[in-house]
Amino acid sequence: MTYDLLCERFRRIGVINEAAGMLGWDASAMMPPGGAAARADQLAVLAGLAHEKLTAPDLGELFENAAAEDAWQEANLRLMRRLHLRATSLPGDLVEAQARANSACEKVWRVARAKADFDLVRPHLETVIKFVRQEAEILSQVLGLAPYDVLMDAHQPGILSADVTPIFAEYEVFLRDILPKVEARQASLPQPVLPTGPFPADKQEALCRQLSAAAGLSYDHARLDRSSHPFCGGTPTDIRITTRYNENDFTQSLMGVLHETGHALYERHLPEAYARLPVGGGSGMGIHESQSLIIEMQACRSDGYLTWLGPQLQAALGVPAALCTLENLGLIWRRVERGFIRVDADEITYPAHVILRFRLEQALISGDLPVADLPAAWNDGLYGLLGIVPPNASLGCLQDIHWYDGGFGYFPSYTLGAMAAAQLMASARRDVASLDAALAQGDLSPLTGWLAAHVHARGSLLGFNDLLREATGKALDPKDFQRHLLARYLPAA
Amino acid sequence: MTYDLLCERFRRIGVINEAAGMLGWDASAMMPPGGAAARADQLAVLAGLAHEKLTAPDLGELFENAAAEDAWQEANLRLMRRLHLRATSLPGDLVEAQARANSACEKVWRVARAKADFDLVRPHLETVIKFVRQEAEILSQVLGLAPYDVLMDAHQPGILSADVTPIFAEYEVFLRDILPKVEARQASLPQPVLPTGPFPADKQEALCRQLSAAAGLSYDHARLDRSSHPFCGGTPTDIRITTRYNENDFTQSLMGVLHETGHALYERHLPEAYARLPVGGGSGMGIHESQSLIIEMQACRSDGYLTWLGPQLQAALGVPAALCTLENLGLIWRRVERGFIRVDADEITYPAHVILRFRLEQALISGDLPVADLPAAWNDGLYGLLGIVPPNASLGCLQDIHWYDGGFGYFPSYTLGAMAAAQLMASARRDVASLDAALAQGDLSPLTGWLAAHVHARGSLLGFNDLLREATGKALDPKDFQRHLLARYLPAA
Repeated sequence: MTYDLLCERFRRIGVINEAAGMLGWDASAMMPPGGAAARADQLAVLAGLAHEKLTAPDLGELFENAAAEDAWQEANLRLMRRLHLRATSLPGDLVEAQARANSACEKVWRVARAKADFDLVRPHLETVIKFVRQEAEILSQVLGLAPYDVLMDAHQPGILSADVTPIFAEYEVFLRDILPKVEARQASLPQPVLPTGPFPADKQEALCRQLSAAAGLSYDHARLDRSSHPFCGGTPTDIRITTRYNENDFTQSLMGVLHETGHALYERHLPEAYARLPVGGGSGMGIHESQSLIIEMQACRSDGYLTWLGPQLQAALGVPAALCTLENLGLIWRRVERGFIRVDADEITYPAHVILRFRLEQALISGDLPVADLPAAWNDGLYGLLGIVPPNASLGCLQDIHWYDGGFGYFPSYTLGAMAAAQLMASARRDVASLDAALAQGDLSPLTGWLAAHVHARGSLLGFNDLLREATGKALDPKDFQRHLLARYLPAA
Repeated sequence: MTYDLLCERFRRIGVINEAAGMLGWDASAMMPPGGAAARADQLAVLAGLAHEKLTAPDLGELFENAAAEDAWQEANLRLMRRLHLRATSLPGDLVEAQARANSACEKVWRVARAKADFDLVRPHLETVIKFVRQEAEILSQVLGLAPYDVLMDAHQPGILSADVTPIFAEYEVFLRDILPKVEARQASLPQPVLPTGPFPADKQEALCRQLSAAAGLSYDHARLDRSSHPFCGGTPTDIRITTRYNENDFTQSLMGVLHETGHALYERHLPEAYARLPVGGGSGMGIHESQSLIIEMQACRSDGYLTWLGPQLQAALGVPAALCTLENLGLIWRRVERGFIRVDADEITYPAHVILRFRLEQALISGDLPVADLPAAWNDGLYGLLGIVPPNASLGCLQDIHWYDGGFGYFPSYTLGAMAAAQLMASARRDVASLDAALAQGDLSPLTGWLAAHVHARGSLLGFNDLLREATGKALDPKDFQRHLLARYLPAA
């Protein structure tokens, strides 16, 4: 009874968050520039209302009296309590000061990045980090976690820096070994035939819609629109994915939409019975990223899928046949390159960008790294990992919005997701014999059916490693990702 | 001080309503069908939150202690108090039962209208009316108004049925006299050269965007999209107008968008200092409709504007010159015809449709007209006004959503708006000598500048007749509308 009352409350909070989510999508994909100020107010008021409900004075007593009747209810109760605890532990004036500082810093960051001038934003970032440290200190006491782990836990519950540190260290060793070999092999291959546009945005969009629908996304429950930064938003019955189009090159929008389709399918298949409750949501950002990467990287860059995709490209965009061979599409979509920009990185070097940020943000939060030293530490770190040094801060420590908007502890999720995707794919291949044969027909349903059952339908019932254990028989094992990279980038001759 | 506190509360309610308004626009213009159920929940929760804030227990005391310092504050206080009074007077279970009954009735109405089967929806409409009568009875006591006037007052504050009854009676007499004469004159004119498509929706949309921008709507603060029923939504800094396109005929979308542009300009020019407060909003639906009709009917169907519009049509849509003469555009856009459907009606017969509904809904609310007798009463009434009888209920009493969704007291606003538009136009012409010369250059700014000062910027400071009195020197005078119709449809030969 008390449990049901609590669910009622949290479903209501979920509905408020849904409304805010939709308005957030609108702000990125639809809103005219003049609407920004009013929208900020709308989002702030909705956030305030959700916070009000999450910290309602009688919730504490409800939690004391609530009893769970099964594992789902137990997980739900634990997650609800944690949200309540996080919300009630932070003083209102800290939350407000943080919101103001983050917003101010993010605005200045846009200018600083455009001018490649770190000093412009440095004092703002110092303020942001001061408040993040205060937040982490307070929650550290309440949750019994180290301050940086408090921040990680908000994005991928149950994964701590102690779990990630050895995994990343191992990857660094692997990378040092594999990267030169992959580069040498790549140098021995022919140059790819590259697309030469124009490919009108409307035609790219129609193809993206067709491919995402073929991958299983029903447009009765989804939209595809345009925004300057691609994302997947909306709600499980009304998913909004976005991308941007470069009229000279369709390769990014196409893989971008397949990536967002992976996020979308996860949302779409979450357990309806627990809709709007914490246990009914996705199991953290690492698992969410595993679902976008398993579609984009594992499935849609596989030999089978690319073989099927070639003729689709010819038909939809009129590109020459020579561009559409499996060999050439592989040269395009599996190109490895040491670069400065994380979001442009290939799947081999991407973890290096994450490892760099993971180490730096721990040092920023602990105070070991003064903000003033960040640009130099960034450059040293990237040189150590990839042997390159960004020519300016825009291509260095100013490239990502995360820190400047107060987001710490998120970055590891990208690589946890890539590794989990490889592990899940290996298991799906073992369980479903027809998986690759279907991919070669452009049919993702054997894979997505397996994911729906083993990942999507489980919501947040299990944490990161327990979910992997039940789906694949083991906790995160970075060896599966290594095996995937070796098979794809250094195939036995 | 207390006044400021109240404003703070009501601005917050205003922000919640803005969020709901945006989600309503999205539901009509963007949302995939599968999102409907979740959206209904989101809108219900936001409505509930706004209602919660509007009925907060401490508001009564704040109202007791609040003092206004000028006429704006006084009007604002009065309007806030009235909203609070309306919200607190209705028992929660009645409001909920009404919401459920309206929603159920509206769903069945869609089927009934498609099948032209009134009996299907009759019991639902009876329930809807039962609750509307209960609502009206309760508010009648609180507001000191007759039950039907309570419903009218919600749409156009300060206008009662006793104001409207003689105006409508006079129009009926005028109509009986003018309509046969207009028809006889029209029969003596050549047949119009009609557009023959196809006119691709994208081209129509581009032209509509161009014309609305030329009329003064800045797309930095607005969007134009598509929906099955055209409307103007959004907020003053982020206006969303919609229309639908018939690829064989551009004439409806074009005038439809100019109509919505009139609503949009009103919203855009509302007094920013009172944003989100009742006094800062539009002064009722009648005044709102006057602003759409003064743009669409008074300005954009004027000789001057149509003269300018012809070449724009040729350039944008490639229509033949013979179609684009002033004479021919007049034959198309000023055609008078006795028809069954209100929304398709010309400006002479439109009030007949409103008069019919005004009389019938009074009788439905008083109980004088049993719901079972509505179809016959409708047909008799239309025959009495226009001499025609709809062949079935879809073209008769099932055509409008209003009643089936619980909306009573709204219809008179359409004709109050048409009359006010004529009166405002006559005054604007007197005040601004260059008005018609500018229209002949496609320049609406002398008119919209006058409207911004005399109508838009005044928000809800004044009620319907006081607003007209200050803008035009007199309360609503239906003679201006008659003069307009005579000048346009029976010009001195």
